[in-house]
Amino acid sequence: MKKFSGTTLILTGIIVVLAVILVGVLLFMRNLPSAQRGVTPIVQVKAMEADSSIWGENFPNQYSTFLQTETNATRTTYGGSVPFEKLDADPMLRTLFAGMAFSKGYGEDRGHMNALTDVRNTPRLSEKTPATCYSCKSADNPALWASMGMAAYDALSFKQMSDKISHSIGCANCHEAGTMRLIVTNPALDEALKAQGKDWRTFTRQEMRTVVCANCHVEYYFKKEGNYLTFPWEKGTRVEDMEAYYDEIGFSDWTHPASGAAMIKMQHPDYELYTAGSTHYNAGVSCADCHMPYTRDGAAKFSNHNVQSPLVNPAASCGTCHTDVDYVVGRVNIIQKNVHDTMMATEKALVAAIEAIQKAAEAPGADTAKIEEARKLHRAAQLRWDYIAAENSMGFHNSQEALRILAAATDLARQAELKAYQAVNTASASR
Amino acid sequence: MKKFSGTTLILTGIIVVLAVILVGVLLFMRNLPSAQRGVTPIVQVKAMEADSSIWGENFPNQYSTFLQTETNATRTTYGGSVPFEKLDADPMLRTLFAGMAFSKGYGEDRGHMNALTDVRNTPRLSEKTPATCYSCKSADNPALWASMGMAAYDALSFKQMSDKISHSIGCANCHEAGTMRLIVTNPALDEALKAQGKDWRTFTRQEMRTVVCANCHVEYYFKKEGNYLTFPWEKGTRVEDMEAYYDEIGFSDWTHPASGAAMIKMQHPDYELYTAGSTHYNAGVSCADCHMPYTRDGAAKFSNHNVQSPLVNPAASCGTCHTDVDYVVGRVNIIQKNVHDTMMATEKALVAAIEAIQKAAEAPGADTAKIEEARKLHRAAQLRWDYIAAENSMGFHNSQEALRILAAATDLARQAELKAYQAVNTASASR
Repeated sequence: MKKFSGTTLILTGIIVVLAVILVGVLLFMRNLPSAQRGVTPIVQVKAMEADSSIWGENFPNQYSTFLQTETNATRTTYGGSVPFEKLDADPMLRTLFAGMAFSKGYGEDRGHMNALTDVRNTPRLSEKTPATCYSCKSADNPALWASMGMAAYDALSFKQMSDKISHSIGCANCHEAGTMRLIVTNPALDEALKAQGKDWRTFTRQEMRTVVCANCHVEYYFKKEGNYLTFPWEKGTRVEDMEAYYDEIGFSDWTHPASGAAMIKMQHPDYELYTAGSTHYNAGVSCADCHMPYTRDGAAKFSNHNVQSPLVNPAASCGTCHTDVDYVVGRVNIIQKNVHDTMMATEKALVAAIEAIQKAAEAPGADTAKIEEARKLHRAAQLRWDYIAAENSMGFHNSQEALRILAAATDLARQAELKAYQAVNTASASR
Repeated sequence: MKKFSGTTLILTGIIVVLAVILVGVLLFMRNLPSAQRGVTPIVQVKAMEADSSIWGENFPNQYSTFLQTETNATRTTYGGSVPFEKLDADPMLRTLFAGMAFSKGYGEDRGHMNALTDVRNTPRLSEKTPATCYSCKSADNPALWASMGMAAYDALSFKQMSDKISHSIGCANCHEAGTMRLIVTNPALDEALKAQGKDWRTFTRQEMRTVVCANCHVEYYFKKEGNYLTFPWEKGTRVEDMEAYYDEIGFSDWTHPASGAAMIKMQHPDYELYTAGSTHYNAGVSCADCHMPYTRDGAAKFSNHNVQSPLVNPAASCGTCHTDVDYVVGRVNIIQKNVHDTMMATEKALVAAIEAIQKAAEAPGADTAKIEEARKLHRAAQLRWDYIAAENSMGFHNSQEALRILAAATDLARQAELKAYQAVNTASASR
């Protein structure tokens, strides 16, 4: 048997030790958790923390831009964040909203940080206002919904809920503390998606960058019992789908005092209009891509939480994809002017319909069946108009769909006017 | 004095000779004419040559693709080049065009090579058809206009002109022989541009790649005396501009036999709709960019003269600018469906208006002033609808403008219906 020299033994020993270390390192690496977000938290944010300033210690860039929503007042051609009274700018609105809160005041909205102040100061508030109206105004909500349940929350009055709420919209409305991932926090949205067979937990991050906005920027109604917050999406999110839903359950927000029609007040269906086949949505663009464009500050790159009109900073919002920003801003202007002009024609038709129905209803011996038909047409016309009018982009979110719907609204309003006329005039010139 | 060696003298001589040659070459180069088009003509094409096959000897790629317009029959969702009877596909058209030639036959059009055959076989022809109807159908026209003058041409009847015309649309309609540059050949276009203070001779080549299509793809009318071909562009090319022009001169194409309205028949205003602020036009895209996309055949690159719908070959037409062709074709489909659906609503409103006016006019004791108002509304509504309906893109050339105009058309048609009703019913339910 051959003997090994001392040197050979030492070298062999080193090789074995190295091999063992290598295997150990490889095994350790295999068991390492996957890469974490590159943020070392300065403070631990508790689940559903309502105070955004605490989240802000970990995310100073996002937080400092978010704070700008308090003072970002900028007027765009048709919107922006400078308060003005829409009822004065467009007096036809007083006729259209007669008999309901929006005829008392319809102020242009301001940024997210002002939501709580503004909802407490709106002339639309009354003793009957339910707590549900806080649903989209406060970062306190996720914790309240979790502790009380939404049904108990909504069953309270606005006044009763006021003590529990002290923070405007904030981080907790869209983010999960700790992971910071985007989440649906509004139970009504979770339920509305489920009603369509959708589970937001399976959505991509880019999809979430649109869906979280639907926590609030959607059409909704309060169920008659308990003012339970509900999105009318069971049949789909197009205006005709929502109309069919409301018709089926026989819902109305109010009865128009002049026409007598059972009306629907549409509320900022930004999400629904945008996702109804708009060119940007179909191209995979999210709400955040335009309203919260990525911003650089020194070495940091972050999404700007000063959520506002992309027209305020088109270079950042549009320029990410479009090379010629002047050109695309020109397009926005053309689109919005077209939609605005077409909308004004719809309003004129609606006002004419309301006046005609009112006169017919006051006329002795009028055909009540025809008046009822006219009222149904008024409802159908005005909910279409309001779907576009209450939406926050003057049609830009989906210009094709906006003009299609306004054309239909005008058609229905004019038919309502004629039907009312026919109710008091029996000589047949038509139909 | 120092003597030079023979070698030195020889070398100096060479330097001087070289310098002289260099100066000579430089002077020669300075006086060279600028670069010519890289085509060596095989045949000399005479000015305004009507026979495209002669031009084709010099430009075999352009000519062979042009020949394909004879057999390129492809049906798209809303158009294409396969003949079908639109009156059967959409029977409302018979009511709208009652009393005029388009109610006799409204066939889908075919490619350029078939223009002459098709105009001679249309059921719209009559003994009264003027020669003017050949204006957009033949490559013989430029030479005829040059020799006869357009007034003498238009003063003849269609039948009288038939002997002089034997070639369908061809090279001479858009090109200058020899230089091959794009030119306006139709005197009516030259005059219409002049009326707007424009001179096409100052246009860029890219502008000409749109303007030459306006030799034919425009709204036009025949002046009452001599059927002189005229484009109604004096006040502009938007539909409201043309309407104002026609109203001012008191023009109508025919009187609708049911409503009694003095009507305008709009004719394929492709150029006007496209240039009215469409997204593609504003982005500098010409008609030829999409309808005659650059094509490669071996080493040759040329613009495809098989002019047809870009939907037949979106990879070539859209793919030059858009990376995701499936996405953009999807957009075209959404746009065209929206416009089509909205257009159908407009047609229903127009048919209702026509029926109402007819009944009112037949009613004894009806208010004739109100009936006249209703007729004016019918005219205004239908010319708007027809501006979009007669246009060859189902709104795609300018989808915003198309929907804006259709919304206005429906509004006016419904107002016409109501006005007619009011003419026979005096009990006031409205106005």
